[in-house]
Amino acid sequence: MKPFASTLLIPTGQLQPHSQHVTRRLSSMRGQYADLAAFERMLEQGDPLVYEVFENQVPSRPGELAHGTSVVHPGRVGDEYFMTKGHFHAVPDTAEVYHCLSGQGFMVLETAEGEWAAEEFVPGRIVYVPPFWAHRSVNAGDTDLVLFFAYPGNAGHDYRTIEERGFRKRLVEKNGAPTVVDNPHWGGGA
Amino acid sequence: MKPFASTLLIPTGQLQPHSQHVTRRLSSMRGQYADLAAFERMLEQGDPLVYEVFENQVPSRPGELAHGTSVVHPGRVGDEYFMTKGHFHAVPDTAEVYHCLSGQGFMVLETAEGEWAAEEFVPGRIVYVPPFWAHRSVNAGDTDLVLFFAYPGNAGHDYRTIEERGFRKRLVEKNGAPTVVDNPHWGGGA
Repeated sequence: MKPFASTLLIPTGQLQPHSQHVTRRLSSMRGQYADLAAFERMLEQGDPLVYEVFENQVPSRPGELAHGTSVVHPGRVGDEYFMTKGHFHAVPDTAEVYHCLSGQGFMVLETAEGEWAAEEFVPGRIVYVPPFWAHRSVNAGDTDLVLFFAYPGNAGHDYRTIEERGFRKRLVEKNGAPTVVDNPHWGGGA
Repeated sequence: MKPFASTLLIPTGQLQPHSQHVTRRLSSMRGQYADLAAFERMLEQGDPLVYEVFENQVPSRPGELAHGTSVVHPGRVGDEYFMTKGHFHAVPDTAEVYHCLSGQGFMVLETAEGEWAAEEFVPGRIVYVPPFWAHRSVNAGDTDLVLFFAYPGNAGHDYRTIEERGFRKRLVEKNGAPTVVDNPHWGGGA
């Protein structure tokens, strides 16, 4: 394999070139936002793009490093900020590192054992997601949240666990400020 | 292990907080710059700081991701730009990814089998160092070259191979422009 390069454009977060571009619209996240009525109202008016991921794929081996950008667009479903689906890694004992390049928000994290954390993103902020921690990026600002990420090539994604039970904590706007609150649907009630 | 965060400051490249700060002065790179007389003259006038590395250490396991910043200061030894020592990984089948945040320069790469490459760094540029490729960062500009990097926690560093034989290619200023030339000392002649 030869060395290769790409360019991360600011403030859009586009990666040129890239081998994969994932787009996630609101309809793909049914049950993840707590305000179900606000979710359905938004869908009736269209199906907004919530986030995008640009990635340079590498061989699926432990010593390789998948890397790219995620771009979470600004918006809210009710009082809850736009966010990524969130995932564990399919190979759970693999970490991920994120570097915030533009925008502001949070990384919300939790373990299967019930620990949770919320780390703030502002430009320059680097957040380390240790092995075994599920993680979701949340845009709490008015502009795109642009993150560079890298993770082991063999890590893979487990989205289903979060789709089925959600995260314990949600990031909502309360009195004009981002606030961590409990998820009333946690455990699969949605 | 809990999630943790740090902040990468631009344009200095400082990482706050960090668990490790490596400083490399010119005297630690005897034999690596081709113009031996220019090297000795520079040393007589002091021992300039060539580059620094700020790192957040993580457990030395394959699924973890060591990460931090390297800051190569501007300067030349004769016509040859300031650069890092360069290294293979001690666990050779491990990759590394670099993201240029400020400054300009090159990543010079080579394999034990004789392949080589030079990838340009400008702000936004991401360079992928595949497994088995030695790599060295070179500052070809007038300001600090600031790079964010991530590599597997178990990779380690093999500096000795490069100390003993050098890189096949050097980055020099020729007619005012950065130029790749052969290393006359390659293989251990220095």
